[in-house]
Amino acid sequence: MNPSEDALKRLKIADGHLRGVIRMMEEDAYCIDVIRQIQAVQAALNKASTVILENHLNSCVITAIRGEDPAERERVLREITDVFDTATKT
Amino acid sequence: MNPSEDALKRLKIADGHLRGVIRMMEEDAYCIDVIRQIQAVQAALNKASTVILENHLNSCVITAIRGEDPAERERVLREITDVFDTATKT
Amino acid sequence: MNPSEDALKRLKIADGHLRGVIRMMEEDAYCIDVIRQIQAVQAALNKASTVILENHLNSCVITAIRGEDPAERERVLREITDVFDTATKT
Amino acid sequence: MNPSEDALKRLKIADGHLRGVIRMMEEDAYCIDVIRQIQAVQAALNKASTVILENHLNSCVITAIRGEDPAERERVLREITDVFDTATKT
Repeated sequence: MNPSEDALKRLKIADGHLRGVIRMMEEDAYCIDVIRQIQAVQAALNKASTVILENHLNSCVITAIRGEDPAERERVLREITDVFDTATKT
Repeated sequence: MNPSEDALKRLKIADGHLRGVIRMMEEDAYCIDVIRQIQAVQAALNKASTVILENHLNSCVITAIRGEDPAERERVLREITDVFDTATKT
Repeated sequence: MNPSEDALKRLKIADGHLRGVIRMMEEDAYCIDVIRQIQAVQAALNKASTVILENHLNSCVITAIRGEDPAERERVLREITDVFDTATKT
Repeated sequence: MNPSEDALKRLKIADGHLRGVIRMMEEDAYCIDVIRQIQAVQAALNKASTVILENHLNSCVITAIRGEDPAERERVLREITDVFDTATKT
């Protein structure tokens, strides 16, 4: 399984999990149990993001840094800083 | 809209968003755009959790704290500490 | 050791750790090592926050919920929701 | 001010803030106020980490990716994935 397939599979599992959480809410499950399941979905989404970033670093980022376009290189590095910054806040 | 309906609506919107992210992956969208959308889904899930916790505090927690069962009270407060502890880690 | 002393001790250890990180920066340590140490300080601060919240729930929150002042009760519960909301974002 | 000086300054400000939080605890400040100040310190540490990562991307990472050593390149990219993964958890 390549990294994209791995990430896609993780996202689909997270989505199945999230739909389960929605059913819990519809069936008036205990609030704390719902929150815990939401936190589990988020941990799964974190892992999917990490897999996608790893793939990105090993493809687009290497290409951009080795390329001859300084603006493109700067853009690609700036994006990584941005998603890292957001990751520290979510 | 009561808090449970609000939370349920938020979870459904987050799920629609997540299914959009899955389509992006299937269509080979740019990695960074996918990560940003995952982060947006997570922000929506955070907000849903907060609404659920608020509802829980104003119902079960008040009942338990005013009740006569010390073990139940302790359990309910411990649960809040636990979900807070997990929230600081995800 | 009561919860306040526990929290205080944790904060002091985190501060000693953070001053170590500052020395690392002053001595031009490797960036990734510095980031990892900052993340360790943050994990310690998370734990201190959890201890403080637990203590708060078992004292002020119980008093407020059992008290006769609805505005005070509402305020105390709202504060917990607020710090939880912020915790999911940092 | 270069990025290292910027990061160092941010860490020192965060440390001054954290020492203020310790004094609050020693003076028995209200729990929720202490937690909020800890969260502010963490936001400052997040920002310092982002500045350090940005600097790292624009120096070591570019050098490694343009270099001739595949193991070194892989190591440097792996480190970024690792700190991102941890960032999503703290």
